[in-house]
Amino acid sequence: MRIVDIREHAVPIHSKQRNSRFDFSLMDTSVVAVVSDVIRDGRPLVGYAFNSFGRYNCSAMVRERFGPKLLGAPPELLLDEAGTNFDPARAVECMLQRERNGAHAERCIPVGTLEVALWDLVAKIEQRPLYRVLADRFNDGRFSDRVPVYVGGGWYAPGQTAEDLRREMQGYLDAGYRMVKTKIGGLPLAQDIERIETLLRVVGGGPSLAVDANCGFDRERAFAYAKALAPYGLRWLEEPCDPMDYELYRELAQAYPHPLANGENFSGARELDNFLRYGGFRPGQDVIQVDPPLAYGIGEYVRCLEVSRRFGFGPEAMYPHGGNLMSLHVVAGLGLAACEAYTGVFGVFGGFGDEVSIGEGMATLPQSPGIGFERQPALWAILSQLTEGA
Amino acid sequence: MRIVDIREHAVPIHSKQRNSRFDFSLMDTSVVAVVSDVIRDGRPLVGYAFNSFGRYNCSAMVRERFGPKLLGAPPELLLDEAGTNFDPARAVECMLQRERNGAHAERCIPVGTLEVALWDLVAKIEQRPLYRVLADRFNDGRFSDRVPVYVGGGWYAPGQTAEDLRREMQGYLDAGYRMVKTKIGGLPLAQDIERIETLLRVVGGGPSLAVDANCGFDRERAFAYAKALAPYGLRWLEEPCDPMDYELYRELAQAYPHPLANGENFSGARELDNFLRYGGFRPGQDVIQVDPPLAYGIGEYVRCLEVSRRFGFGPEAMYPHGGNLMSLHVVAGLGLAACEAYTGVFGVFGGFGDEVSIGEGMATLPQSPGIGFERQPALWAILSQLTEGA
Repeated sequence: MRIVDIREHAVPIHSKQRNSRFDFSLMDTSVVAVVSDVIRDGRPLVGYAFNSFGRYNCSAMVRERFGPKLLGAPPELLLDEAGTNFDPARAVECMLQRERNGAHAERCIPVGTLEVALWDLVAKIEQRPLYRVLADRFNDGRFSDRVPVYVGGGWYAPGQTAEDLRREMQGYLDAGYRMVKTKIGGLPLAQDIERIETLLRVVGGGPSLAVDANCGFDRERAFAYAKALAPYGLRWLEEPCDPMDYELYRELAQAYPHPLANGENFSGARELDNFLRYGGFRPGQDVIQVDPPLAYGIGEYVRCLEVSRRFGFGPEAMYPHGGNLMSLHVVAGLGLAACEAYTGVFGVFGGFGDEVSIGEGMATLPQSPGIGFERQPALWAILSQLTEGA
Repeated sequence: MRIVDIREHAVPIHSKQRNSRFDFSLMDTSVVAVVSDVIRDGRPLVGYAFNSFGRYNCSAMVRERFGPKLLGAPPELLLDEAGTNFDPARAVECMLQRERNGAHAERCIPVGTLEVALWDLVAKIEQRPLYRVLADRFNDGRFSDRVPVYVGGGWYAPGQTAEDLRREMQGYLDAGYRMVKTKIGGLPLAQDIERIETLLRVVGGGPSLAVDANCGFDRERAFAYAKALAPYGLRWLEEPCDPMDYELYRELAQAYPHPLANGENFSGARELDNFLRYGGFRPGQDVIQVDPPLAYGIGEYVRCLEVSRRFGFGPEAMYPHGGNLMSLHVVAGLGLAACEAYTGVFGVFGGFGDEVSIGEGMATLPQSPGIGFERQPALWAILSQLTEGA
């Protein structure tokens, strides 16, 4: 049993939306395929993944630095003890040979994306959906049948009106969602507050609305927003400032009485450990949002859970970033709080495919083996191109 | 005045040496050339740089992500106020458009390498060696004529004997060096101590010998080495453990009575700020080793100096990593403590070229305009290939 090929392709996301700091017009991602020699129904089993959003493609590093390590390794080094399946943890160990300590962000995306593709492959070999495999390995076999989801929406767009925003949010509610998130920081504070009041009238109340500043605030603006937002009792205030400015987070956590959120730009457990040690996050209240394919993969995500637990944060604090099938499996299999959903943004990379339905703020789960990208038709059209002829 | 082309090439380093964690057999680097439309002696002025060592090439990001931003920017955006030269700080601002906060390590190398190449270009346009330009911009015009240097040597090599090591170190002394650094952690503690005693007999005493563990130790081994090394009063103990484990550094700084060193794996001022805030480093004693092309460039290095000063560390604490002409200019122009030198390692990328001579532990400075790679013949053979036909 071995990996016989690794393929990748950089795909533009073609998005016009904007957060507090920049537009996404140049954003792209890497789709990867890890091809095995395991033949099922006459074809090799393949694991797929892509590197979430908000960063850029990691194709060159997959192609030149990390893929060749997997392809060049003695095949048995990449297998589990029994030799009956691949072991993503061993694959990561192999990819991190001859790599420095520190500087994690340099490589956490290509390694994480390949690791998640390996999990897709592992679950396909077991002929089970990934969340069941993860539940067995990391959660004493427990998994959720349906998982809470919330919409990552409310982006800034050219010419957007209050009516546009109302219609967008009503659409989410009509589609079965109960909680939404909106961007803040792309307009002056007073206009952002108007925007939030518009949204609150649609979604019903603060606990159903989170806001996301995408690290856009300096100290002064962060405190101004914290003060102005406090009366609304919002679900959370996400990334108000530089995600690595632990001291500023600590001060904000002392001043702002409602939940804060951070983590989607962390490279893994080491950075999370430092953040929770110094950043003043409050157990039972604040929210952690590490994104598996952007942060060394699912194995590292499990280590993030261990780190979080040491600082008093259980699975109820964990809302992985990345509204996609990969995160949905992680939330379901590890019993986490909720999964983000991208509805109508990020093109073919948004959404959960045709096996998943939404209702009462919950998502059903896919039943296909692996992650189930095969049942997300527009995305599958791209992923399957990777392996034509394989 | 504009940038008309950016060229890059990934070059293997062909090194057999080994530190505490891995060998360098697959190590490579990117050489970059930033071609301007400024014509001097009938040819366009070009800035050159490469991304130091110990990481890997950043070619794809130069080619696909950051180079195109510079080439696509309105030319005046990249110039200084007077419009008579390029402004590397504005170029960095341009390269960081549409980039996330956090995740610095992902991009600090390609941005830093391009930024240093721009400084080479800036100094060539001014027809002065780079250190004089840096002294004017950032150091009230003060610069050193000669700068202290120390040798980054003592690598582990296959079949190495004590006699080999003695001969290596004697060679450095004969070449005019007075202080050397050796690797530790690649052998069991007792053998490493024997190695250190061998070296001390050659170099004369603890203050002339630093040791570098390249982040190879866990907590237990870090404390074991700290305890065993303490009696020797070595110049410094470098990167004993994970560079981001601030808490472990803090504990080591309390236990180990001599200088510690860290910083070559930092991505810039943000990480340095956190490290100095939490890591227990002692002003007047410990050593900071940020490497400009690996950490957003020289402008960011100046910000690192500001951060350091806030925590009580002056230029005397600053020993930039990277034994090359780029670091030599930074040390001379900013008045820092000393520059590392690689003698006979890292192939054509080691050494300072034929304008620089070493004596009494000091290096003279190049007089060519810019960085002066043109006078480092073996390296220049590679760099000049980038711009054949330009």
